[in-house]
Amino acid sequence: MEHRFRPAEYHTTIGSHPPVLRISDGDSIVTTTVDARGFDQKGIQVAQRGNPQTGPFFIDGAKAGDILAVHLDAIRPNRAHGFTAVGIAPNVLDPGHETIDWQQRPNWSIDSDANTATIQLANSHLGPLTVLLRPMLGCFGVAPDGGEAISCATAGHHGGNMDYNGFVAGVSVYFPVFVDGALLHVGDGHAWQADGEILGTGIEVSMQVKMTVSVIKGKTIRWPHGENEHYHFTVGNARPLDQAAQHATTEMLRWLQDEHNLDAPSANLLLGSYVEYDVGNFFDPAYTMVCKLPKRVLP
Amino acid sequence: MEHRFRPAEYHTTIGSHPPVLRISDGDSIVTTTVDARGFDQKGIQVAQRGNPQTGPFFIDGAKAGDILAVHLDAIRPNRAHGFTAVGIAPNVLDPGHETIDWQQRPNWSIDSDANTATIQLANSHLGPLTVLLRPMLGCFGVAPDGGEAISCATAGHHGGNMDYNGFVAGVSVYFPVFVDGALLHVGDGHAWQADGEILGTGIEVSMQVKMTVSVIKGKTIRWPHGENEHYHFTVGNARPLDQAAQHATTEMLRWLQDEHNLDAPSANLLLGSYVEYDVGNFFDPAYTMVCKLPKRVLP
Amino acid sequence: MEHRFRPAEYHTTIGSHPPVLRISDGDSIVTTTVDARGFDQKGIQVAQRGNPQTGPFFIDGAKAGDILAVHLDAIRPNRAHGFTAVGIAPNVLDPGHETIDWQQRPNWSIDSDANTATIQLANSHLGPLTVLLRPMLGCFGVAPDGGEAISCATAGHHGGNMDYNGFVAGVSVYFPVFVDGALLHVGDGHAWQADGEILGTGIEVSMQVKMTVSVIKGKTIRWPHGENEHYHFTVGNARPLDQAAQHATTEMLRWLQDEHNLDAPSANLLLGSYVEYDVGNFFDPAYTMVCKLPKRVLP
Amino acid sequence: MEHRFRPAEYHTTIGSHPPVLRISDGDSIVTTTVDARGFDQKGIQVAQRGNPQTGPFFIDGAKAGDILAVHLDAIRPNRAHGFTAVGIAPNVLDPGHETIDWQQRPNWSIDSDANTATIQLANSHLGPLTVLLRPMLGCFGVAPDGGEAISCATAGHHGGNMDYNGFVAGVSVYFPVFVDGALLHVGDGHAWQADGEILGTGIEVSMQVKMTVSVIKGKTIRWPHGENEHYHFTVGNARPLDQAAQHATTEMLRWLQDEHNLDAPSANLLLGSYVEYDVGNFFDPAYTMVCKLPKRVLP
Repeated sequence: MEHRFRPAEYHTTIGSHPPVLRISDGDSIVTTTVDARGFDQKGIQVAQRGNPQTGPFFIDGAKAGDILAVHLDAIRPNRAHGFTAVGIAPNVLDPGHETIDWQQRPNWSIDSDANTATIQLANSHLGPLTVLLRPMLGCFGVAPDGGEAISCATAGHHGGNMDYNGFVAGVSVYFPVFVDGALLHVGDGHAWQADGEILGTGIEVSMQVKMTVSVIKGKTIRWPHGENEHYHFTVGNARPLDQAAQHATTEMLRWLQDEHNLDAPSANLLLGSYVEYDVGNFFDPAYTMVCKLPKRVLP
Repeated sequence: MEHRFRPAEYHTTIGSHPPVLRISDGDSIVTTTVDARGFDQKGIQVAQRGNPQTGPFFIDGAKAGDILAVHLDAIRPNRAHGFTAVGIAPNVLDPGHETIDWQQRPNWSIDSDANTATIQLANSHLGPLTVLLRPMLGCFGVAPDGGEAISCATAGHHGGNMDYNGFVAGVSVYFPVFVDGALLHVGDGHAWQADGEILGTGIEVSMQVKMTVSVIKGKTIRWPHGENEHYHFTVGNARPLDQAAQHATTEMLRWLQDEHNLDAPSANLLLGSYVEYDVGNFFDPAYTMVCKLPKRVLP
Repeated sequence: MEHRFRPAEYHTTIGSHPPVLRISDGDSIVTTTVDARGFDQKGIQVAQRGNPQTGPFFIDGAKAGDILAVHLDAIRPNRAHGFTAVGIAPNVLDPGHETIDWQQRPNWSIDSDANTATIQLANSHLGPLTVLLRPMLGCFGVAPDGGEAISCATAGHHGGNMDYNGFVAGVSVYFPVFVDGALLHVGDGHAWQADGEILGTGIEVSMQVKMTVSVIKGKTIRWPHGENEHYHFTVGNARPLDQAAQHATTEMLRWLQDEHNLDAPSANLLLGSYVEYDVGNFFDPAYTMVCKLPKRVLP
Repeated sequence: MEHRFRPAEYHTTIGSHPPVLRISDGDSIVTTTVDARGFDQKGIQVAQRGNPQTGPFFIDGAKAGDILAVHLDAIRPNRAHGFTAVGIAPNVLDPGHETIDWQQRPNWSIDSDANTATIQLANSHLGPLTVLLRPMLGCFGVAPDGGEAISCATAGHHGGNMDYNGFVAGVSVYFPVFVDGALLHVGDGHAWQADGEILGTGIEVSMQVKMTVSVIKGKTIRWPHGENEHYHFTVGNARPLDQAAQHATTEMLRWLQDEHNLDAPSANLLLGSYVEYDVGNFFDPAYTMVCKLPKRVLP
């Protein structure tokens, strides 16, 4: 079943908030998200800043210990402009390296027909920059454990503000379920984002989103996973990058042993021989490292 | 001019050792390297372990403050087996995660005609693994500043044990020159290595190497750079990953401003919009992060 | 005015929970806390584990942007046993260093008259260990900003699970206020704790606590501060230790410039000449570093 | 036997340089060191900057695998001024926090009779600062393994630029021996230094030093140790602080098990119950963390 949901309120934490919609395993949702500062498709601020989330959606039958699979069917900007920063965040540069005012937020023009976004900096001899759109969700996830309500600035086991440019349409994302109904939140669309989100932003824009959810019983994961055409991947969220990478790598190793029934030396050799890493974000309070394994090498 | 050099001795530090050959700007060298444990193409140990280096080569005219460009013309395994580890290094996994004996060193069979390497773990229900060769240099660089002799276990401004799988044939590598003649060292060939070298090894093998050197005057870099068909990249070597990434990113930003004459906001926006990161190594005493920018977006 | 409050419920997050008591600026509270696993003075589990908190207390007149001062008048174990771990947490040791089962939780005997705690490990040729009591609060703080409810496992701007052994009776602690009434939570008493809480525990025990609160208007802090007979100190909570220490040091520098009206070079020189650091905890999801300055050197 | 040695040359790396003096196990050396920038007791620059070292001293009988004990008998400034910085190093502060020009190097006046050093910043309403002298060695150690020559900017297993204010007269320091004769280097005296060396300097001054060496056979350590009246301590040198602390803690645990014959749970509990940490330096390429255990609690 496909639900069309028009949000009336937003949350800047991911937590056990009252569900806005109850759906069934296998259902799809078509909805919208506002941009990181709470502006909607009309450019009107309808929520306070800080990656305000649409939801939460209660998925019937999801229980703590299950996995919630969220297939990202479609993610499309629903307005013609998105903002970005023009400075690189100080934590990404050598201590003491002179930084510019990276709090500026100029706009990119988004041309959905041409599938591009373009910016021309004022007073720069750099010509206009044009990128092909690659719309993604920066912040989304499920209610965390233990009654926490976690700021949408940061990320954790529950997902959250991972700002990974691999979360595009066509990808399936898997979250550990901590509470009844999983309580899925979505927001913070980026029309484009390079590795690491080192500007502190992608091209921040409101989105129309379609996704399909399903509940997986009898399997457990500790960190978000994802799957696209070519890769299975695991996501670690922490500071510093080392710890984020340790979480993602350990989770992948565990998954190879549990899901693919490999003994430890085999799982180690397989992962060590084929692993690829992506830097999700190197900016937020929790950094995100992604550990990828090509599906073709899985047993 | 092309020099054929047969090494008779090796160094396990990169430093101001007596040069083994003096060559001119623009010359090529064809030589061999032994594997990380000092075994040559015949499988005979001819050097002590620890990434023993061939060289150093003195390049006429290279002075402190110059750049040494090293074009990797060819890197080819010169024997039919290479070793790897079968455990993931503990520093790559969550603290306390049970590790297997990652000091084992089984062999891969290398088939240079088929361009593959293959391993079959004993007592594993994982079938044989086969990779297409992608030969690279793990440890190479120039003599460091200040009279240091730096262990070939680690890396720094001078290059060294970067263990980055992007250092393959066809790539040009740029090093800052610290001493007269630059004093180029090369070694530690890997027939294949995944991201991060998380096994603590690639497929370690002796190599035949051809490279062409040139001296660039009037420009200065602080960290190694590289260039392949599609990317210009900068290399940061440090612990933790954060610091390695900070070095590489700052170096790229500096290069955009100096070499491409961009003002700070333009350089920031360009880099922030297109940057890609690779994890070189996440194992050695200094980790390696690589900051890449597609050449097509350069002004 | 002195309030005697007997808790009936506990929270394992610090957040904007309904206040249990409303008090005035200048009032004192005498209350009890349960141990980290929710056991009270009778050894009965009355709350779920995870540093359950007594409170929150609403302090009349406290508004976002103010400072809440909490003077710790008295902290006394109210039962005769407390537990600890006997293993050092894996994150504190070199990766791959063999760890013992650090989840064991043997008991110390607490003798309040003698002011000591004693343990004798079974099957150990180490004799009994006896420490002089130094009761402290491991986890306490105020409701965070933005509607967050933060797990009592971790710490932040709001305080929380700092596990710093300097939070003993006689100390004044200062928190930034984020919400009306500040909403003070207290819990997680330790009869004793060494630096870093590297066992993952102190001597965990229920406590009787007396504290006096006051509201400071017109001044702002970003991180918790404290003050004892000899020192003013600032507290940074983050991972890794570096970041925690950066927060604490920057906060102290800011305080010297704002509160003591020092220009930047003077504040830098003063702090750099006299700073002392304590490692609060090197175990929790956020580590705690404490930056101390002797009061005698303040202008 | 007491040797009086007047240095004629200095090294800015610690390595297997030709020994300047050969001494016996049990001998004492009285010598001088120049300041971090190579200026001697007369204020004349006699060595290049970068913590130039006096030595190396060859200790007869010291072999790889032994321990070299260096008792610091006396460390005294031998001139009346020392320099410091007036800015806090950027790596110690929050990324992006505005820093002042921390490269300035004003002088402190040193009054050896009064045992004080005093500075008065120009144009500051901060009055003169006066500290009681606490002379220490910032950089000293033994030749490292594997033919390395390690910059005196940094530290490692061999000691080096640890910049720990606990290395004062009366302390015994223990180094692992890597090469014949150990090859002891000493330099970089500080008349005073606060925790962390966050200015990037102590009060940098030339010194007269007396020390007594002895060789310990049949025991092995991996990191420097030290011992003063109240504590035994271990020293970890690495980045980030976490790793430095892991090395120091693991080394102490190993020492408790090996030297004091404790089983793992006993060593863990003892260390976890009494450990104290000092931040040696939080500035150099390798940070230094010190893990201390009171001697009175040793079995």
